[in-house]
Amino acid sequence: MSKEVSIGLIGYRFMGKAHANAYRQVNAFFDPPLRPRLKLVCGRNETAVREFATRFSWEEQTTNWREVISDPDIDLVDISASNDVHAEIAIEAAKTGKAIFCEKPLARDLAEALTMLRAVQQAGVPHMVCFNYRFFPAIRLAKRLIEEGALGEIRQFRAIYLQDWLVDPTFPLHWRMRREKAGSGALGDTAVHIVDLARFLVREITEVTGLLETFIKERSLPDRAGTGEVTVDDAAAFLVRFAEGAIGVFETTRMAPGRRNFMHLEVNGEKGTLYWNAEEMNTLRFYSEEDPHYCQGFRRIDATDPAQPYAGTWWPAGHLLGYEHSFVHAVYELLQAMAEGRTPSPSFLDGVLAQAVLEAVVQSAECKRWVSVPEIDAEVN
Amino acid sequence: MSKEVSIGLIGYRFMGKAHANAYRQVNAFFDPPLRPRLKLVCGRNETAVREFATRFSWEEQTTNWREVISDPDIDLVDISASNDVHAEIAIEAAKTGKAIFCEKPLARDLAEALTMLRAVQQAGVPHMVCFNYRFFPAIRLAKRLIEEGALGEIRQFRAIYLQDWLVDPTFPLHWRMRREKAGSGALGDTAVHIVDLARFLVREITEVTGLLETFIKERSLPDRAGTGEVTVDDAAAFLVRFAEGAIGVFETTRMAPGRRNFMHLEVNGEKGTLYWNAEEMNTLRFYSEEDPHYCQGFRRIDATDPAQPYAGTWWPAGHLLGYEHSFVHAVYELLQAMAEGRTPSPSFLDGVLAQAVLEAVVQSAECKRWVSVPEIDAEVN
Amino acid sequence: MSKEVSIGLIGYRFMGKAHANAYRQVNAFFDPPLRPRLKLVCGRNETAVREFATRFSWEEQTTNWREVISDPDIDLVDISASNDVHAEIAIEAAKTGKAIFCEKPLARDLAEALTMLRAVQQAGVPHMVCFNYRFFPAIRLAKRLIEEGALGEIRQFRAIYLQDWLVDPTFPLHWRMRREKAGSGALGDTAVHIVDLARFLVREITEVTGLLETFIKERSLPDRAGTGEVTVDDAAAFLVRFAEGAIGVFETTRMAPGRRNFMHLEVNGEKGTLYWNAEEMNTLRFYSEEDPHYCQGFRRIDATDPAQPYAGTWWPAGHLLGYEHSFVHAVYELLQAMAEGRTPSPSFLDGVLAQAVLEAVVQSAECKRWVSVPEIDAEVN
Amino acid sequence: MSKEVSIGLIGYRFMGKAHANAYRQVNAFFDPPLRPRLKLVCGRNETAVREFATRFSWEEQTTNWREVISDPDIDLVDISASNDVHAEIAIEAAKTGKAIFCEKPLARDLAEALTMLRAVQQAGVPHMVCFNYRFFPAIRLAKRLIEEGALGEIRQFRAIYLQDWLVDPTFPLHWRMRREKAGSGALGDTAVHIVDLARFLVREITEVTGLLETFIKERSLPDRAGTGEVTVDDAAAFLVRFAEGAIGVFETTRMAPGRRNFMHLEVNGEKGTLYWNAEEMNTLRFYSEEDPHYCQGFRRIDATDPAQPYAGTWWPAGHLLGYEHSFVHAVYELLQAMAEGRTPSPSFLDGVLAQAVLEAVVQSAECKRWVSVPEIDAEVN
Repeated sequence: MSKEVSIGLIGYRFMGKAHANAYRQVNAFFDPPLRPRLKLVCGRNETAVREFATRFSWEEQTTNWREVISDPDIDLVDISASNDVHAEIAIEAAKTGKAIFCEKPLARDLAEALTMLRAVQQAGVPHMVCFNYRFFPAIRLAKRLIEEGALGEIRQFRAIYLQDWLVDPTFPLHWRMRREKAGSGALGDTAVHIVDLARFLVREITEVTGLLETFIKERSLPDRAGTGEVTVDDAAAFLVRFAEGAIGVFETTRMAPGRRNFMHLEVNGEKGTLYWNAEEMNTLRFYSEEDPHYCQGFRRIDATDPAQPYAGTWWPAGHLLGYEHSFVHAVYELLQAMAEGRTPSPSFLDGVLAQAVLEAVVQSAECKRWVSVPEIDAEVN
Repeated sequence: MSKEVSIGLIGYRFMGKAHANAYRQVNAFFDPPLRPRLKLVCGRNETAVREFATRFSWEEQTTNWREVISDPDIDLVDISASNDVHAEIAIEAAKTGKAIFCEKPLARDLAEALTMLRAVQQAGVPHMVCFNYRFFPAIRLAKRLIEEGALGEIRQFRAIYLQDWLVDPTFPLHWRMRREKAGSGALGDTAVHIVDLARFLVREITEVTGLLETFIKERSLPDRAGTGEVTVDDAAAFLVRFAEGAIGVFETTRMAPGRRNFMHLEVNGEKGTLYWNAEEMNTLRFYSEEDPHYCQGFRRIDATDPAQPYAGTWWPAGHLLGYEHSFVHAVYELLQAMAEGRTPSPSFLDGVLAQAVLEAVVQSAECKRWVSVPEIDAEVN
Repeated sequence: MSKEVSIGLIGYRFMGKAHANAYRQVNAFFDPPLRPRLKLVCGRNETAVREFATRFSWEEQTTNWREVISDPDIDLVDISASNDVHAEIAIEAAKTGKAIFCEKPLARDLAEALTMLRAVQQAGVPHMVCFNYRFFPAIRLAKRLIEEGALGEIRQFRAIYLQDWLVDPTFPLHWRMRREKAGSGALGDTAVHIVDLARFLVREITEVTGLLETFIKERSLPDRAGTGEVTVDDAAAFLVRFAEGAIGVFETTRMAPGRRNFMHLEVNGEKGTLYWNAEEMNTLRFYSEEDPHYCQGFRRIDATDPAQPYAGTWWPAGHLLGYEHSFVHAVYELLQAMAEGRTPSPSFLDGVLAQAVLEAVVQSAECKRWVSVPEIDAEVN
Repeated sequence: MSKEVSIGLIGYRFMGKAHANAYRQVNAFFDPPLRPRLKLVCGRNETAVREFATRFSWEEQTTNWREVISDPDIDLVDISASNDVHAEIAIEAAKTGKAIFCEKPLARDLAEALTMLRAVQQAGVPHMVCFNYRFFPAIRLAKRLIEEGALGEIRQFRAIYLQDWLVDPTFPLHWRMRREKAGSGALGDTAVHIVDLARFLVREITEVTGLLETFIKERSLPDRAGTGEVTVDDAAAFLVRFAEGAIGVFETTRMAPGRRNFMHLEVNGEKGTLYWNAEEMNTLRFYSEEDPHYCQGFRRIDATDPAQPYAGTWWPAGHLLGYEHSFVHAVYELLQAMAEGRTPSPSFLDGVLAQAVLEAVVQSAECKRWVSVPEIDAEVN
């Protein structure tokens, strides 16, 4: 029987729900050496958090996140709350020696993210940031192909992540539209995913030039009279140079009608191309210069095949996985790493390095020139 | 607190796993009036069924399905075992007054299916057949659009369901390739899904002409020397006429290289067309003659939108659902119907009516002419 | 300087226009050993045919097709008129020793088609039927891959050809909806293309079972009061067996809303699959079991590459060809064959063999059972 | 009978061939008030230009472009030669009062392009730049929808234009890889198309930030020993701001394996989105917020329908047009404008305005900051 790890989950909305589901599902479909115990869930609204606890079979609930930290039974603190509390919770949790699994973006800005990294490094606790897109089988297959040299040296990377949930001008002001709560808008919420995937597949970005735009600057306040200012970006775009010579183009927006949740990324190398589209997330397209000339073409590889990473324990080939499965895979990695005594991947360092790129984009958008990505010491000194 | 319904699950392989997952997930994402209790799971291999029970949190396990029937605590018998035991189990379960949820095809042939229907009707127990494809949000949206008259009168239906798991000639003889275990091959396994969807969307089929083919007639026996005969079809194709005037074309195969699990269906009416492809199962394509001429075109409707059937309680629009979600929706219907005291849909009658079409295809393939689909009395008399 | 071949074209509507364009374009993009001289065009409406002659640079025009036959300067008679006059014109043209290029279907029925074949065989004149779909580069590439054994033995073929030009119930009665003019409806007009492609790729069909349907049986007469009966099929579907063991499914219709001109065909063999879709007619999809398992997938091969058949003399790779290019390639084959003294391919025999399949479908639809395709003597005896 | 306009074509390779074809085809499929006479074609290689003249039915050929200018019969000079001679030819042609049709990019740089604009303005001759992508029916439909307000105010534009013809490192040095001949690389060759389409659909660009990259800096010289330096960009990317408030992202490359000629562009407005992909160039995707919520989705509009711009005179709906048709439409516009005494669209001014954007990209790539697009006086003063 595998050992239990007791979870304290802070946040129960979109991400809290995705994480709760992952803790429930991971042992049914994988064999992690540790078994999550759904111990305590925390949220601000007492009725809602109680309802959630019942629904997802949590043992207890609270409205005070400090109870999660102070509970000696909790082994792992899961931070699925709004961005403004990531740092404080993580730092407190680290002090008590608990492992930490934090939603992206790691923090509102780079400085804050660095305090979190230093805290977990000093405390020596396991830490992971939830860049769930790394955990789609098709993305893992992309990683494998690149590492095997199927593309040769990488020359170009492009990624867009388009959403449309703010197109409606009557959509009310939300915490994700306030800088003090969210840090940034589409940049930290969606661009951070494609920055992380770029780092995962093509490694470090060294400089950027970018722009930020807010199309609707005033929105009605939720549940009461009056309007408030949107203090974050609706859209962001930036060009980059990678450390190893590649160039990249990134764009994200919340204002693309009809693009409910559209991510497309493409990698061009000397010898081939890979592309992936979240609308067909179970497939990867691969073109190889090495195919016979008259038969060259993009292959549509089905990543649900049991031969593919993470896919083998779900269903037979051709039976599609969904969005939430990526979180199950992420939790599986977390549990494996904790059992093995190694740092999970992606770690808080990955969260910081992505944030450093975003920070450079913000600066570039202000000063209107290319900006170097801040260098980060990987290890606390 | 919702009332519990105790489940006895027979079978723990592909379908048993999909059903077990559905019982676990339904209360986390929906609010059925009954709550499944995972009481007893049954399988022939003691080690494997024990491992499965632990993995999916079943309270007990057994290797004898009669224990499921005789357990007075069990409210619902779930038949996810091979086709040859569906009838016997269902008839015994009905005698004890238990509700029954049976995998498709309902039975090996029409006669057997009818004994099952009569048994549940006489016993007055709830009964449902697991045609899970009816429960994809996109298919429900298709149903809605047809019922609203968006297509007008339906004229044509076409569906293909292609797989490739038997292309490899070294793939060993499996129970699904033996008539005495499976009844038929691709016909009962995959064509039955598209027949059911045709009935769901276009109603009854009255006559058919078809063919059956077995390309590889001898395969090695699993785990031992020698070979055995494949006694079912690898592929089936048939033309049909519907009661209300439409015509239809159906094809299925297990021998289409690269088509891991490819279903495509299309409905043409007087005023529009719908099509759906399982590779993009979260979308429905809809063409309306009523759009302005210069803007006419197939719309790619995202069925993950909260406005769509079953989609609202999972994730925000654009976050894809997978194959297994259809089973969660099916179980939700089962629990709702049981609580309301009505017959779930699709019921054993739907299982029988689909089987009647398959029966006519088998006959037609033998006599090489059009054959009327046997008429079925809906109610026991 | 290449030798001239003087063309007499009968018909100037859709097909006449496509042929006229082909004669004009072939020498600009290919190097046929013969050069078409646009000598004489014939049509019933004097004003219209004169306008057409000017537009496409024909030297002369006439309203009497017998003038084409009797003109001693004409080397090649092109029959692009309605189906009911194909036979009479071809037989007369053969008598005068002229080469003949005839639109599909070769005739209204098999008997009529056979009279044409016998006439050209007896006269010893070059003869070709315009199955233009054989001449798309992607289809030629499919042929090459099959001949090279990339699929192994062929097991299954499926093809649909959907149009929607008759969905509108006010669309008037047209010659293509009258049996005495057209012979059949969608069967001879569109199904004939997919039957020919099946023969081209998978060889002979030996037996069929099929259905024909007319959804709108009465339509208004063009330009005057009253209505007339539609005496041909709006839709046709049939199952077939091929001589070499494969099975096939065919469907065509003029009543599929939104499907302007949608052809899809797929070939499954022991070792791979090919599919082609007319909406992306410049590409061919190819799946090979021989790719490494974790990289298997359908390749989207760009058939505009100069490496592909017929593609090299147009534009650089990736610059798309259109529908009309297939006619240019067909005319190129015709001119090459004439110069080489061989029968062009596809010949009237191919026209007859396709018609024999359609004939069997018509019979099968009437008698409601499988019907053998009539055997044809390839050579006159 | 329409009046003739005598053409003098300079250049007979890819673009010369596309233009020659357009002059031949325009009167067969459209009714321009002027009829092109293929009078004189010019190229450097005497044998090759003679062969071309025969193939495309030009009356005469020459190897000296000044003969085209000095020929008093020539009404229109078509500049399809390499970029380095555009200006000199155009200026000389303008002096003789001839109309000018010039391939894109108008010139090697902005200054040169301006001399050309001023020359034609001073001479008062008709002038057009061949941005052929404006002439695809789907692009015209996009323009129509935007002008009708279907998208509301435009907020975002993105376009990529990817090719792969330089991926092979043994591909020899070509004039398009030398700055003195071409001006720039992918920037002037392919990015110029998407800049022009952006201007066509979203109007003026005011500032840019960009990068240029050359991945393979040395290539073998054609036909002789040694290597030469690649002095232009292989790839370019830039972010822009439009005068009316939208933002844009542009990228082009010649180094994307498998992307033979891949252009994708997308426009997001307040009320909808349009996108277009050159691989499916006969279709336009359109999403409208105004569709009923549960039926919203991207429509795949078939732009071959006779209702669409330029499509009606070719073939029935659903019969695809190819790449070369865009040139026929462009020539039709040119002939119409000349007959009407107005400036064709796009004119040399459009060529200059696109070049001004490229110029700003080049500067930005050098100074590594945002650069304003130079303002251009539309009219000579």
